[in-house]
Amino acid sequence: MPSPTLPPDTSGRSGAIDVGLLSPVTVGHDAGVSDAAVLDALVTAEVALTRASARVGAAPERVVAEVASTFGWQDGQSGCRGHGVALGDLIAASVAGGNPVIPLVGTLRSRVSSEAATWIHRGATSQDILDTALVLVARSATADVAASLAATSAALAELARTHRDEVAAARTLTQHAVPTTVGARIAGWLRGIDRARTRLDAVRAGLPAQLGGAAGTAAAFAEHLGSSEAAAALIDAYAAELGLAAPAAPWHTERWPITELGDALVQAIDAVGKVATDVATLSRTEIGELAEGAGGGSSAMPQKQNPASSVLIRSAALRAPQLGATLHLAAALAADERPDGAWHAEWPTLRELLRLALGAAANAARLAAGLRVDSAAVARNLAATGGLLVSERLSIVLTPLIGAARVRELVAAGARGDDLAALLRALPELGGTDAAGLLDPAAYTGLAGAFVDRSVAAASPAADPEEHSP
Amino acid sequence: MPSPTLPPDTSGRSGAIDVGLLSPVTVGHDAGVSDAAVLDALVTAEVALTRASARVGAAPERVVAEVASTFGWQDGQSGCRGHGVALGDLIAASVAGGNPVIPLVGTLRSRVSSEAATWIHRGATSQDILDTALVLVARSATADVAASLAATSAALAELARTHRDEVAAARTLTQHAVPTTVGARIAGWLRGIDRARTRLDAVRAGLPAQLGGAAGTAAAFAEHLGSSEAAAALIDAYAAELGLAAPAAPWHTERWPITELGDALVQAIDAVGKVATDVATLSRTEIGELAEGAGGGSSAMPQKQNPASSVLIRSAALRAPQLGATLHLAAALAADERPDGAWHAEWPTLRELLRLALGAAANAARLAAGLRVDSAAVARNLAATGGLLVSERLSIVLTPLIGAARVRELVAAGARGDDLAALLRALPELGGTDAAGLLDPAAYTGLAGAFVDRSVAAASPAADPEEHSP
Amino acid sequence: MPSPTLPPDTSGRSGAIDVGLLSPVTVGHDAGVSDAAVLDALVTAEVALTRASARVGAAPERVVAEVASTFGWQDGQSGCRGHGVALGDLIAASVAGGNPVIPLVGTLRSRVSSEAATWIHRGATSQDILDTALVLVARSATADVAASLAATSAALAELARTHRDEVAAARTLTQHAVPTTVGARIAGWLRGIDRARTRLDAVRAGLPAQLGGAAGTAAAFAEHLGSSEAAAALIDAYAAELGLAAPAAPWHTERWPITELGDALVQAIDAVGKVATDVATLSRTEIGELAEGAGGGSSAMPQKQNPASSVLIRSAALRAPQLGATLHLAAALAADERPDGAWHAEWPTLRELLRLALGAAANAARLAAGLRVDSAAVARNLAATGGLLVSERLSIVLTPLIGAARVRELVAAGARGDDLAALLRALPELGGTDAAGLLDPAAYTGLAGAFVDRSVAAASPAADPEEHSP
Amino acid sequence: MPSPTLPPDTSGRSGAIDVGLLSPVTVGHDAGVSDAAVLDALVTAEVALTRASARVGAAPERVVAEVASTFGWQDGQSGCRGHGVALGDLIAASVAGGNPVIPLVGTLRSRVSSEAATWIHRGATSQDILDTALVLVARSATADVAASLAATSAALAELARTHRDEVAAARTLTQHAVPTTVGARIAGWLRGIDRARTRLDAVRAGLPAQLGGAAGTAAAFAEHLGSSEAAAALIDAYAAELGLAAPAAPWHTERWPITELGDALVQAIDAVGKVATDVATLSRTEIGELAEGAGGGSSAMPQKQNPASSVLIRSAALRAPQLGATLHLAAALAADERPDGAWHAEWPTLRELLRLALGAAANAARLAAGLRVDSAAVARNLAATGGLLVSERLSIVLTPLIGAARVRELVAAGARGDDLAALLRALPELGGTDAAGLLDPAAYTGLAGAFVDRSVAAASPAADPEEHSP
Repeated sequence: MPSPTLPPDTSGRSGAIDVGLLSPVTVGHDAGVSDAAVLDALVTAEVALTRASARVGAAPERVVAEVASTFGWQDGQSGCRGHGVALGDLIAASVAGGNPVIPLVGTLRSRVSSEAATWIHRGATSQDILDTALVLVARSATADVAASLAATSAALAELARTHRDEVAAARTLTQHAVPTTVGARIAGWLRGIDRARTRLDAVRAGLPAQLGGAAGTAAAFAEHLGSSEAAAALIDAYAAELGLAAPAAPWHTERWPITELGDALVQAIDAVGKVATDVATLSRTEIGELAEGAGGGSSAMPQKQNPASSVLIRSAALRAPQLGATLHLAAALAADERPDGAWHAEWPTLRELLRLALGAAANAARLAAGLRVDSAAVARNLAATGGLLVSERLSIVLTPLIGAARVRELVAAGARGDDLAALLRALPELGGTDAAGLLDPAAYTGLAGAFVDRSVAAASPAADPEEHSP
Repeated sequence: MPSPTLPPDTSGRSGAIDVGLLSPVTVGHDAGVSDAAVLDALVTAEVALTRASARVGAAPERVVAEVASTFGWQDGQSGCRGHGVALGDLIAASVAGGNPVIPLVGTLRSRVSSEAATWIHRGATSQDILDTALVLVARSATADVAASLAATSAALAELARTHRDEVAAARTLTQHAVPTTVGARIAGWLRGIDRARTRLDAVRAGLPAQLGGAAGTAAAFAEHLGSSEAAAALIDAYAAELGLAAPAAPWHTERWPITELGDALVQAIDAVGKVATDVATLSRTEIGELAEGAGGGSSAMPQKQNPASSVLIRSAALRAPQLGATLHLAAALAADERPDGAWHAEWPTLRELLRLALGAAANAARLAAGLRVDSAAVARNLAATGGLLVSERLSIVLTPLIGAARVRELVAAGARGDDLAALLRALPELGGTDAAGLLDPAAYTGLAGAFVDRSVAAASPAADPEEHSP
Repeated sequence: MPSPTLPPDTSGRSGAIDVGLLSPVTVGHDAGVSDAAVLDALVTAEVALTRASARVGAAPERVVAEVASTFGWQDGQSGCRGHGVALGDLIAASVAGGNPVIPLVGTLRSRVSSEAATWIHRGATSQDILDTALVLVARSATADVAASLAATSAALAELARTHRDEVAAARTLTQHAVPTTVGARIAGWLRGIDRARTRLDAVRAGLPAQLGGAAGTAAAFAEHLGSSEAAAALIDAYAAELGLAAPAAPWHTERWPITELGDALVQAIDAVGKVATDVATLSRTEIGELAEGAGGGSSAMPQKQNPASSVLIRSAALRAPQLGATLHLAAALAADERPDGAWHAEWPTLRELLRLALGAAANAARLAAGLRVDSAAVARNLAATGGLLVSERLSIVLTPLIGAARVRELVAAGARGDDLAALLRALPELGGTDAAGLLDPAAYTGLAGAFVDRSVAAASPAADPEEHSP
Repeated sequence: MPSPTLPPDTSGRSGAIDVGLLSPVTVGHDAGVSDAAVLDALVTAEVALTRASARVGAAPERVVAEVASTFGWQDGQSGCRGHGVALGDLIAASVAGGNPVIPLVGTLRSRVSSEAATWIHRGATSQDILDTALVLVARSATADVAASLAATSAALAELARTHRDEVAAARTLTQHAVPTTVGARIAGWLRGIDRARTRLDAVRAGLPAQLGGAAGTAAAFAEHLGSSEAAAALIDAYAAELGLAAPAAPWHTERWPITELGDALVQAIDAVGKVATDVATLSRTEIGELAEGAGGGSSAMPQKQNPASSVLIRSAALRAPQLGATLHLAAALAADERPDGAWHAEWPTLRELLRLALGAAANAARLAAGLRVDSAAVARNLAATGGLLVSERLSIVLTPLIGAARVRELVAAGARGDDLAALLRALPELGGTDAAGLLDPAAYTGLAGAFVDRSVAAASPAADPEEHSP
């Protein structure tokens, strides 16, 4: 008689309660890291352990069948659904022991036969289950992040191709510097995102199961299975049940699986944060080169085209690095065979980082899909400083002809507003050189096009969707 | 026709959903910062604006009466309850505009007469309402934090008095150094907590309302009230309605009210974090000087007396500083008249910091109330290094009598295990000095007792509970 | 004729070597926190202890005279100069014991008579001297920070007055929103800076000396002075010698004096960071409302007017909060009577934070002194969206006359480029209202002027320079 | 005979001045990241560009010969030494332009023929040189870090082998839990360090050169070389000269090369931080299982064996994560084609992170080389809780025989101090089972030995020293 997981009308709201009202960047994207999802993963980890015990020949098949059906086991990627464990009760009970696994085990055991009960959590410690559950949640969530990043990448690649040769002012330290192209700028974003995807994919592929018992020696497994070889086999079987990497040894207090995951998530948020930073800037009223497709408007102020997704992504990018830092601190302070606080600090931090990555990547995909280039604004800004945008080129071309001092005078005249083209035409040293051509920013974009081509060619397509979480 | 705020069986679970399963430090303590509480505060801020409009003679009293009764206005400290705004809908609608105030205004207006609707949110901007709501939530939450800290302080003061003269080994760089007292150690904790209380009280007393309109000029208020004087009066009236400080000017992009609050919260968590760090250390199996009253036990490992509250507090202490850093970053990057991401980064960060402070302080109060001193263990450890714990004293007393070189030899002999008392008695230079007295650590505690007395005397009692949130 | 790798004249320059080449924000401002300055402060703390021993009647006056003259004692604010302790040797020797005080004591004792040697460091621990020295360095550095902030404040107040009524476009989420004034924007900066000054002044005034001996009980002082009363008097005398606050008790592992100092420094950097963020934005080529007086130009790209100080200040603002976080972590993890790493983590972190505050504040003073407002650009941007900048006002004024739907149509027409003034004049409902006046942004600035007046009036003048470090 | 404030011999010492006195963890290890080393790298990057210009057939060989010999070019790994550029002047001159490259170019050009001068910095931007120089410094420093980690790993592997089967108490949440082995604990450290080495090696192998000109399009190179193909070849040649990876495109505002480096450095510090955390704990006076070989002693307190390296390593571990966070923030905020502050924030942050990694890894190598296991203390602690350390085993073995309730009674009796062995012997259900064997912790260590073997076997030897920096 399973109790309902969550009351009907909240279960559909996917991870939004109590973290939703004040975090619009994550709303609608974080169901996979909700308390309900974590609970599913905890149950999945427990059931997988029982299944693994059978796989190594210890637990009877009838026990596995009972446990799996009682708690809704689907398979290693999908885990358990409809297990009927009540979330609220579990939360309340989790305080006494400092983690939710202790009361969960009691609940699970109470729901099965006494024979099956002895096989639930047998030889395991809370950390085995909680770490593994977090890894399961992370696998699913990072698949969603990766899918959003792939969509972002595809949309940006298309944009970069389309605007490959559209010349624009490049800005350094806020000032117009030399020409670039709209495509080159977008190709830079693309490289950042694709690099982050590569790293996230690598981390996800290596996510390890955790199974080591009370102090990481697997002694309890060896005891009840009768040999240390069987304990080693159990660890591998457990990982196989869940489709996770089998660890060389438990990582209960060597926490690189968590910090490497955290680093990859922060890198992904950095990459879309850079996009958002540029979009927010280039959407400014005075600049106007870019606009989000569904900019947040205002009925009272119709002139506003807020770069709404950029703002949300940036809010995530300002938060994520410090969460990543907390994971590293926890790793360095992972004392003893289970730390006195550092481990507990990881859980909500990793979850929030996953949430931010989900929200930031989803917003980036939306942003990229709808991003509009206002070519008229691009051209207007390109022309804003007269020919001065190519003053670096003038310096290269003219210095050998007229010397550095006269070049400086020339561009200074241009900076005062004189007509550079006329001044150039009046230079006898220029000979037959086309003055207008010299001032044409389109003729001074170097490898911009080549970098677009390379970046688009290197952009990996989305990973096989079957690898994604269901 | 108000829709139900939350389904019946979640409303009683006070802020735990989706942040509870993985954050045991906060479970049961964070109802005041739940989405439901934030929504109450948002409604309260809106109603207070309408009330203020009447207070300055603009809105008709009948409008105020209608609005206040429709949305359950209690008073400035209690705000609105039972307003009937559906949280789930609001969360979903908050994404488009990037914050929940825009859809909230629509909902509120739809619930009152058309005349009253024109007085809701009149002249205000989303930030006015959201900033003020966060301040209201913070006022209430910090009152709870302060109450927990006051209880912690009282319990620690009592402990410090009780153990004022109980001599114990002081440890520096993990090693026994010289004697101290149990009371002196606890008195140090007490000073840290009381300092944090003082600062938190100061910040709470100065929390300002926010009201400035779209860009902080209050132009819309001046327009519809007919004068800038009236707009200035409105700001004061609004603050008065809510019992908040009236700001000299809007702080929409000068964010010290947020960072000073954040700093005070982090300081409070630091202070209890220090307590937890010491309790965790001194509870170690080999040390055993302290034990939490309700230590998390383990049926499988009955020898364990886990310092459960210390572990939870430490998990908060490892996280809080980085959240505080995010608030500062947001302040420094608060661009323009409303920033493009920095403001949004504050909301969930401040809330999580409030949540951590609530949980850490509540756990500290529990820890302090139940903390047990094992005097036998204290004495055993005190004796562990023989008389070496007073080797500094021997050096002071004996160097003038026998020279530094012979003192070094003497303590080296003690370090090898020789009987220091016998060696001392054998020293003719010592004359009539009592060798045993010289080695008595109780005679070498300096101002330990005086520091206890000062610290206990200075510990402020709990602030007047009437100042606390209901 | 190559000069040697390190030129002779660098040995005398303080604060630049090995932190200079890569931190242009601090170059030229951080002499007061150099290793040489820290060494001066360490010697000062040692000499002050000897002087205090005389003040309470223990050390002979001849000893004080010898020690003071040997090590160049000036007075409590100026401390010791020309003490002749070799920095390089001390650094090398500081590794073994983990801090520089242990070898310093040996060096100091070797330089005086054997009688005087016994009074050097008598009863003290390394932490007493190091903490006190850091406080001395911080007092001096924060005085310099405060002076730079005062200069910044004065320059900004003057600018705010001058541009009190110069109407400009306010921007929210990067988009033009409603009018504000140049003065109001600057007045916001002013409030942020003045608030930071107030807090920094308060922290500086309360900086405490540290004196507690090996474990904070002052037992060694009591032992050699003969009573705990004398030890208590010694602590007060020590603080008085240095012009520091006398602590109620040692703060060796209750580190709020460090975290409160850190918080105030970060707040100061936040405040100038906000200025720099706005200046960098408003200096953009397309916006051009502001320019730094001595913008970093480029001979190759004369069109560039880099906001050089803003860039440097922002680089500090992006770094400071995380340094502040480290101080808090160290406070929470200040285990035992001297922590196993947390204390050591504070030293370089606090120093770098002081360095950043010095550099950021000095750059802010330079920025404020030279900031230029381009009124033509302000006016051009103000007009960029036609009358739409006052669309909020149109909504307020016209909705009662023609209804919300028609107002929306009207502003939508304006957004499409229609002539709003003409549309308004054609509205019969407008009656005698002056259409042009309605569209005049100068008539819709609300309390902007009043906020300037308040902010300028509240801006405190520089603190008495005599309170500053020499 | 006082020496002058700064001794003559400090000018030649690299890496200690002004960051040494307060950062003992880095003293003696950070010469490779000193200002002098950075200057060498800047000059190296400039000379490499001139060399690359010749390699692609543009610059005359005589120019390359002149430039290389004037500035002491050795080769791509060693770079330039003895170039004669004065550091102090450069630092002072670096403020105006915000970075040291601008004045450096002037200095370099002034030192060579006018023909050669035209080939210095030709087509490059400051960021090309500064980013590349930082990469060169990082390559060298990370090689040193890797060498220290390799030495640490080798020493720990030896220790793990030696103590493979030495049974010890495992601790969870500070409490004795079940048995483990000294070897298993050390093997955990080993895995953490080897994982960090792998990642650091991967990052180092991929460190890219930076060359893109003013806005990352390489337009100036294409202009003066006559084609974009030649510009592309130049970038490859430049990387080849320096032995760095050739970038697919400039990474001027896509900063993953910096953040991935930072993440790997933080991970390395985490790994040794975990070692230090455990060593500090297990060195506690009451525990005493470990001692650093050269523990910082105290003449006044001879009983102290301070874990000096652990303390220093922990001080680094508490600081590093927040520095890593700053690098990520800078990446996310890398606006435009050169950011307005974010880039500048990277330089000192990355340097300090390199410095911390160098110091922490060097201290770890020292710690590992000298670490002593006190087997008597290990055995004493193992026995401290009587047979309760194997209560988990008793539960597994006895529950099927006597039921869970009686097992609980049994261990509860043990917890009260009863003789567990006698109680077991008295159990008829135990049959012929060896009661003493059941209580033997050595028989309950599961896979501890196997994990040691795996970890030691997997520990990679030091990378080929030829790959290291000279």
